[in-house]
Amino acid sequence: MKHWLITGFEPFDGSHVNPSAQIVTALSQSIFPEHFHGLILPVNAKTAPAILVENLQQIRPQAVLCLGEAAGRTAISIERVAINLMDFRIPDNAGEQVTDQPIAPDGPTAYFSRLPVRKIRDGLLAEGVPAELSYSAGAYLCNQVFYTLMHFLATHNMDIPAGFIHVPSLPEQAARRTSLTPSMSMELQIEAIRKVIEIVETENP
Amino acid sequence: MKHWLITGFEPFDGSHVNPSAQIVTALSQSIFPEHFHGLILPVNAKTAPAILVENLQQIRPQAVLCLGEAAGRTAISIERVAINLMDFRIPDNAGEQVTDQPIAPDGPTAYFSRLPVRKIRDGLLAEGVPAELSYSAGAYLCNQVFYTLMHFLATHNMDIPAGFIHVPSLPEQAARRTSLTPSMSMELQIEAIRKVIEIVETENP
Amino acid sequence: MKHWLITGFEPFDGSHVNPSAQIVTALSQSIFPEHFHGLILPVNAKTAPAILVENLQQIRPQAVLCLGEAAGRTAISIERVAINLMDFRIPDNAGEQVTDQPIAPDGPTAYFSRLPVRKIRDGLLAEGVPAELSYSAGAYLCNQVFYTLMHFLATHNMDIPAGFIHVPSLPEQAARRTSLTPSMSMELQIEAIRKVIEIVETENP
Amino acid sequence: MKHWLITGFEPFDGSHVNPSAQIVTALSQSIFPEHFHGLILPVNAKTAPAILVENLQQIRPQAVLCLGEAAGRTAISIERVAINLMDFRIPDNAGEQVTDQPIAPDGPTAYFSRLPVRKIRDGLLAEGVPAELSYSAGAYLCNQVFYTLMHFLATHNMDIPAGFIHVPSLPEQAARRTSLTPSMSMELQIEAIRKVIEIVETENP
Repeated sequence: MKHWLITGFEPFDGSHVNPSAQIVTALSQSIFPEHFHGLILPVNAKTAPAILVENLQQIRPQAVLCLGEAAGRTAISIERVAINLMDFRIPDNAGEQVTDQPIAPDGPTAYFSRLPVRKIRDGLLAEGVPAELSYSAGAYLCNQVFYTLMHFLATHNMDIPAGFIHVPSLPEQAARRTSLTPSMSMELQIEAIRKVIEIVETENP
Repeated sequence: MKHWLITGFEPFDGSHVNPSAQIVTALSQSIFPEHFHGLILPVNAKTAPAILVENLQQIRPQAVLCLGEAAGRTAISIERVAINLMDFRIPDNAGEQVTDQPIAPDGPTAYFSRLPVRKIRDGLLAEGVPAELSYSAGAYLCNQVFYTLMHFLATHNMDIPAGFIHVPSLPEQAARRTSLTPSMSMELQIEAIRKVIEIVETENP
Repeated sequence: MKHWLITGFEPFDGSHVNPSAQIVTALSQSIFPEHFHGLILPVNAKTAPAILVENLQQIRPQAVLCLGEAAGRTAISIERVAINLMDFRIPDNAGEQVTDQPIAPDGPTAYFSRLPVRKIRDGLLAEGVPAELSYSAGAYLCNQVFYTLMHFLATHNMDIPAGFIHVPSLPEQAARRTSLTPSMSMELQIEAIRKVIEIVETENP
Repeated sequence: MKHWLITGFEPFDGSHVNPSAQIVTALSQSIFPEHFHGLILPVNAKTAPAILVENLQQIRPQAVLCLGEAAGRTAISIERVAINLMDFRIPDNAGEQVTDQPIAPDGPTAYFSRLPVRKIRDGLLAEGVPAELSYSAGAYLCNQVFYTLMHFLATHNMDIPAGFIHVPSLPEQAARRTSLTPSMSMELQIEAIRKVIEIVETENP
């Protein structure tokens, strides 16, 4: 099995939890500890990319999966493309709201995921997990981390499977919001990400 | 504890399962068997009301909760009102599609739920279960069964707590559909309905 | 042609306009003035019903159509049923937010519309106007006025066509909102309500 | 004023009209004919890019705006990015359904729009036209034409304003669909695109 770096985000936008962080914590406590490096990133446009890059350099993982929460989505969203754009809908946790700025001024417009996205989607659906391919990871921290990851790999000759997946909100988060939000249980989210790892291992032996 | 009649529906509209039936089965296997009468109703406009009424007459329950699936809803939907109208969006499982017909030609236009609907909503939210009050149970079998229940109680002097709750689709159902559908795990749905029963018992001692 | 009373509402919930009021103004300026009584109701749970009843008594109309805005709807929504419940999601323009109160403590649970609702829906669709039948007018002012109308007619032996229609927001309202809202142009809304009047006249000669 | 090439698409997916084509026809009949080249593209993955490129070569426009219909959107959607991916949700009008193929095998992953996208969004909102910035033009013909346009300009040293805008369905289309679809009148769509042209002219004198 590969050495994996799997990242999530701390809570943001008034929420007290973030399912992406809970998945990372759950996986690090329950599975293959010797192969697993978990990392909770801050929702901070300045520090999150630096922390990610530092971990990529130190850990030299053989596979990377970054996770983030997408409130309003009903399914595990396998992101296909990261774009070189920051256009924050809300401020980050440091209060900064970046608009119409590139992530890497000299970087390309976009990167495609290096995960077997369709195999992942089909594999999740076959297990009864709601899943979809997504053409946009937005233009907030999730896309920024996704782009930073792919740009680092491309500019450092790291030819490894890597990508980004958005997960729905948790039921307890939906219950605290005034407008109706779809949700997915933590049990199913963990099962889904375990299945993702299994598919990537099978496709990239 | 009261003697409860709790009903669900068989699968319909091309689905192979119905969460409302699974809840009834799960509750009947796990909790208070001596107080619990579970009933799976057919999605059949002719037979479903007759079977419900027959069970009401034989069992003489002290509380009734009818359940149905509402594909597309994100939360446990506590229905407030049943209307005297059948206006089926799709045929029932017998192939009948009734349009603009009353359920009870001499019955009143509508009945309100006899459940403590707001207490149920607030109690579920407090437990972290997505929940909402709903002003419409539609005009399909769910509303028909809800109206039939309330009309029977009103015309037979049965002053007991009774009502209808719509539950979301299951993740495995959402995974089979071509368009994105919100879902809720069976574990959380069962927890929600157990909590509903507890609240009704507390409010109607 | 019948003597019509057609009502709309003043703006509410932070909006500067209300399409239902604009329709009333437009119709009163352009068509059949001798047959048309237009009325703009306040978004005030105390005064709106009283003003409506006063106008019903004075004008003694031969047909009544009440209109209201339903932000978030995409189509002309022909309401089928008014329920005896006030459960305001937001305060009215006087700052009052009524919860779980009946409109008429001694009134029935609900009234059906007295308009030919399906003929109206089909007639609008045939003209290329997005239209739908709706089973719930909510539990705010719109439902309150709708219920008040039907209750007055029922208790005063006025056997006339009467009902409620929800219209979408205007494009200019959608453009001012932070979240995406469907809208319909005022031209099409006016055309739709003219068509509704024509259908009611044909069906109730 | 610049020489403009403005393109729309023929109808597809069972619809009998396409608002993007109607806009092109309306503009070509009503405004600045000497500056305007209108083009209706087929919904055909093979021929549409070839026809676009042929027109770009022959006309040598000074500004290009490609338009397409996005059923389900409520607002004028100014697309920010075209991706090098064909992943058709439905077959094109020739019956071909391409999956997971690049548009230009040697082209970059993506291109950003060369239109002043935020100025356009803000300008439309200021006029009361619902408008939004979009991070994804999908992976069907619209994105294919958008990418083909940007790739041609980039590889032919044509430094001109160019981009893609998605428009909502028309009310008459929404009225023919079984599920509720948001729509926008042709009058407002034409006004919006005229405003877009005006903003581009102002920003790129």
